[in-house]
Amino acid sequence: MHGLMQDKPLLISSLIEHAAAFHPETEIVTKTVEGPIHRSNYRELRDRSRRVANALTTLGVDFQDRVGTLAWNTHRHYELYFGVSGSGAILHTVNPRLFPEQLTYIINHAEDKVLFFDITFAGLVEQLAPQLKTVEAFIAMTDRDHMPEVNLPNLHCYEDLVEAASEEYQWPEFDERTASSLCYTSGTTGNPKGVLYGHRSTVLHSLMQVAPDAFEISSRTTMLLIVPMFHANAWGVPYSAPMVGAKMVLPGPHLDGENVYKLMKEESVSFSMAVPTVWLMLFQYLDAHPDASLDRLSLTGVGVGGSAPPIAMIERFRKSGIDMVQGWGMTETSPLGVINKPLPKHDSLSDEDKAKLKTKAGRGIWGVEIKIVNDDGERLPWDGKTSGHFYVKGPWIASGYYRQEGGSKLDSEGFFPTGDIGTIDPDGYLQLVDRSKDVIKSGGEWISSIELENAAASHPQVAEAAVIGIAHPKWQERPLLIVVLKDNATIDKEDLMEFLEEQVAKWWLPDDILFVDELPHTATGKLLKTKLREEFGDFKPVTTG
Amino acid sequence: MHGLMQDKPLLISSLIEHAAAFHPETEIVTKTVEGPIHRSNYRELRDRSRRVANALTTLGVDFQDRVGTLAWNTHRHYELYFGVSGSGAILHTVNPRLFPEQLTYIINHAEDKVLFFDITFAGLVEQLAPQLKTVEAFIAMTDRDHMPEVNLPNLHCYEDLVEAASEEYQWPEFDERTASSLCYTSGTTGNPKGVLYGHRSTVLHSLMQVAPDAFEISSRTTMLLIVPMFHANAWGVPYSAPMVGAKMVLPGPHLDGENVYKLMKEESVSFSMAVPTVWLMLFQYLDAHPDASLDRLSLTGVGVGGSAPPIAMIERFRKSGIDMVQGWGMTETSPLGVINKPLPKHDSLSDEDKAKLKTKAGRGIWGVEIKIVNDDGERLPWDGKTSGHFYVKGPWIASGYYRQEGGSKLDSEGFFPTGDIGTIDPDGYLQLVDRSKDVIKSGGEWISSIELENAAASHPQVAEAAVIGIAHPKWQERPLLIVVLKDNATIDKEDLMEFLEEQVAKWWLPDDILFVDELPHTATGKLLKTKLREEFGDFKPVTTG
Ligand SMILES: Nc1ncnc2c1ncn2[C@@H]1O[C@H](COP(=O)(O)OP(=O)(O)OP(=O)(O)O)[C@@H](O)[C@H]1O
Ligand SMILES: Nc1ncnc2c1ncn2[C@@H]1O[C@H](COP(=O)(O)OP(=O)(O)OP(=O)(O)O)[C@@H](O)[C@H]1O
Ligand SMILES: [Mg+2]
Ligand SMILES: [Mg+2]
Repeated sequence: MHGLMQDKPLLISSLIEHAAAFHPETEIVTKTVEGPIHRSNYRELRDRSRRVANALTTLGVDFQDRVGTLAWNTHRHYELYFGVSGSGAILHTVNPRLFPEQLTYIINHAEDKVLFFDITFAGLVEQLAPQLKTVEAFIAMTDRDHMPEVNLPNLHCYEDLVEAASEEYQWPEFDERTASSLCYTSGTTGNPKGVLYGHRSTVLHSLMQVAPDAFEISSRTTMLLIVPMFHANAWGVPYSAPMVGAKMVLPGPHLDGENVYKLMKEESVSFSMAVPTVWLMLFQYLDAHPDASLDRLSLTGVGVGGSAPPIAMIERFRKSGIDMVQGWGMTETSPLGVINKPLPKHDSLSDEDKAKLKTKAGRGIWGVEIKIVNDDGERLPWDGKTSGHFYVKGPWIASGYYRQEGGSKLDSEGFFPTGDIGTIDPDGYLQLVDRSKDVIKSGGEWISSIELENAAASHPQVAEAAVIGIAHPKWQERPLLIVVLKDNATIDKEDLMEFLEEQVAKWWLPDDILFVDELPHTATGKLLKTKLREEFGDFKPVTTG
Repeated sequence: MHGLMQDKPLLISSLIEHAAAFHPETEIVTKTVEGPIHRSNYRELRDRSRRVANALTTLGVDFQDRVGTLAWNTHRHYELYFGVSGSGAILHTVNPRLFPEQLTYIINHAEDKVLFFDITFAGLVEQLAPQLKTVEAFIAMTDRDHMPEVNLPNLHCYEDLVEAASEEYQWPEFDERTASSLCYTSGTTGNPKGVLYGHRSTVLHSLMQVAPDAFEISSRTTMLLIVPMFHANAWGVPYSAPMVGAKMVLPGPHLDGENVYKLMKEESVSFSMAVPTVWLMLFQYLDAHPDASLDRLSLTGVGVGGSAPPIAMIERFRKSGIDMVQGWGMTETSPLGVINKPLPKHDSLSDEDKAKLKTKAGRGIWGVEIKIVNDDGERLPWDGKTSGHFYVKGPWIASGYYRQEGGSKLDSEGFFPTGDIGTIDPDGYLQLVDRSKDVIKSGGEWISSIELENAAASHPQVAEAAVIGIAHPKWQERPLLIVVLKDNATIDKEDLMEFLEEQVAKWWLPDDILFVDELPHTATGKLLKTKLREEFGDFKPVTTG
């Protein structure tokens, strides 16, 4: 017997329609690609999204066709978020920072029918175009005055298209499990894989995200959206903000410390999310500009994820009354999986212990079941010590990859293997230990490459550190430390090894240390260990015993 | 094409399992029917709910059978919330304050297979039993020592049942649209009608409810649940609290001002919800006990709904730093439909204007579409002035009543008619004007019975006031005011009429005023106007012009 409740599907179009009805004048502020500040609001965003939906029909885009974007966080990209998914097509946000070969691979793999791009990427798109097998039209996301001079077949001007389209549009109603958007993983561990989101998963993720125990987003929030809209749905914020009518500030391509600071100040931003690198860039700006200060901002909280923030970052924000909230997630988890909000029992902790707690990835939120398991798939205890493979299950967690690449990924209990390794403490907080591909298996025991990197990076003369496993006849694998020193550094291998001896267990000490000028990174700024393993995997350390 | 997201149904069992996993030691405190305080936690609640599920099988309860409860807010009732719905049966919470004939009607109409009752109601159940056609077993919700001496067939002791049942239980997985619980409306406008909730609607309602723009419930909340668990899912709190791990305080039958105050004080309650009557009882207690004070409580907010709170109530809470949040809802809306949270633009209002804003029923929340329409079903403007029939649409709004009583209730756009009349302002705030059955249609214009009642009740010598429409040869209908005076009141009809002349438009003045000793109320304390119309509907006023 079914309950006698209305059978209303959870659709992305309902988010923007809600905002337009109840928060019509709440602002969407963009620092545009072209330069100036652009001011819009939810009513206009809704009206123009409807126009986009009509324009897509003109372009020949059908139900569930893929629509590619190579674009920054702007009002136009935002219009595509609703216009494309709302009309039943699939928004494929492509990360423009990937290598050209990856871009070609991804766009062809997704079979994008049309491609929207910011003028920043005009040259890139011109270069890619001959290899793109399915793209029938290219749309430059600008107005007539700023159209790039490029040689592209079937090139359109975004503003002309939107202008020409009617504002009259009725969002279609369909099964809430219908695909809404597509995003490929960062490619840290191999080729990017396509994650296909649905309307249902997106709406449920938004409902969870606004909760006080998550990112606490409301009509009172002014959100600076730094996380790129081409990266895992910009952590879901483009959907959750209209759900509650939060004011939105979009930085376009202007992600440097100065612009982030100025936007925060001028728009009275109260909350923002970004990867640690962006916060470091903000700190660098602050350090170089004594008149600028966190204390002058209206910021009350920041979110961080993608990789672990150093404790000093958490502390620096805290000293200005800004609460740093860590989250763990993957493209495959929409992306929020666990979020680090303290419990009432933590109120009595010292400031130092509170900051330490905040270095953990986060605690389970309703909707995501979590577990850690051993190599045989058996559940491990939540004691905060035992580490295992981290698995997740829930309505906004992937079941597999686009075009069934690799088949179903779920275990017999329906859990998704994250590829991360962690511990879970008795309160359900996950502490990330390493990626399973990066952890060093030394004589049956695990050495965390991340912990070793952090230990090395805590030396004042070290700029960046990477640890990979190298083959060892007796221990199977042993750690190799690869280090970039700061300018004017004076230490040598022995100095650093001595320093490490005080930080980690003796058997964790790297078998050798190499000094390099630069480390390879992914498009999202993560260490590209696949590359390091290619280059240094066969390295034979002099010290191997 | 479906998204490649996991197909995990939204089930009520996931709420308690989440709380047991991530908030196992968070307390559930009950002031029991038997008297003493009982302390439990989410782990125990989960364990005992599983036992209840097993016990139901022993009692012969099958999938989707109805399980009736006549019970207060206690840990045992809470165990039934999860044990019954989680196992796939339907929890039918019956309002014990209804008249015996209504109770018999409802329990037979729902075809309850078993009936759980608090010992308070032992005599009542004994009296009803011979008329109950489908109930095969009666369970007294107490331990062996407190078993009532009643003559009931197949009578069980709750604690014995739970004790005997195994703790091993795997919650079944089924379609999220499966019915989970059943509740009949209050019977204000006629016979109570059955509203059948589903797992999906309940979980979505919970997600919405915890949001900062709704009741802002988190792991930091200590919630005193005053709204009865037999009344519209206790406004959803029993489900949303475990979703976030809020501490729960259950008052049992002890709803008087003294007990409410003491529970708040002793358990450091931070939030609570109730109808205005309960808050008035609290105020009466405070007035009589100068050593007690709102300022001594940890309370930061209170919710109110069911009927409109007077502005003085909002003000009194505000003066102690307690934010009163009004919500509008019906049994048919799970029950939250609109919630009154201020927008950033209201920050600059004076305290007085802020309180005035708070007298409105509330603003639209994501998930509930709202509209007001005229008699022809045409949409009316959101100008805060035009009043019309209030309609709602959303995944936790009823589509009809149990056993299809009255058929589908939805209009051509899929909206549910609430039977309420209101205005909506440009920001989407609903102001309730009246019930459509109570509004007085005078010469094609509407007179709000509620506003007239409030005007009369604002006279210091008036204890309570009711307004009904009486037939009029020229104006079709005219208002009749029926008043209960306070002890030692000295005013007469003329005095009150003069007072009213200063409060309302001349054509709103009642055609006559009657003084009575008492007004009839429903089981939930609302004015029973059906009864008044029966009694006074044919009244011929002396002053009719
Ligand atoms: N708070 C965090 N702390 C540490 N690492 C994190 C955190 N949040 C995310 N990560 C890392 O980021 C990963 C998810 O990143 P993303 O989905 O962008 O692609 P990727 O895993 O880097 O690339 P690919 O899957 O293509 O190799 C997680 O699996 C985890 O390793
Ligand atoms: N904030 C509020 N202000 C004024 N009235 C309210 C408010 N909230 C709810 N109500 C009234 O309560 C009604 C819902 O009450 P409920 O579902 O308990 O049963 P009922 O409508 O009183 O009874 P029945 O439908 O059986 O006649 C709403 O339709 C509305 O008239
Ligand atoms: Mg990955
Ligand atoms: Mg009703």
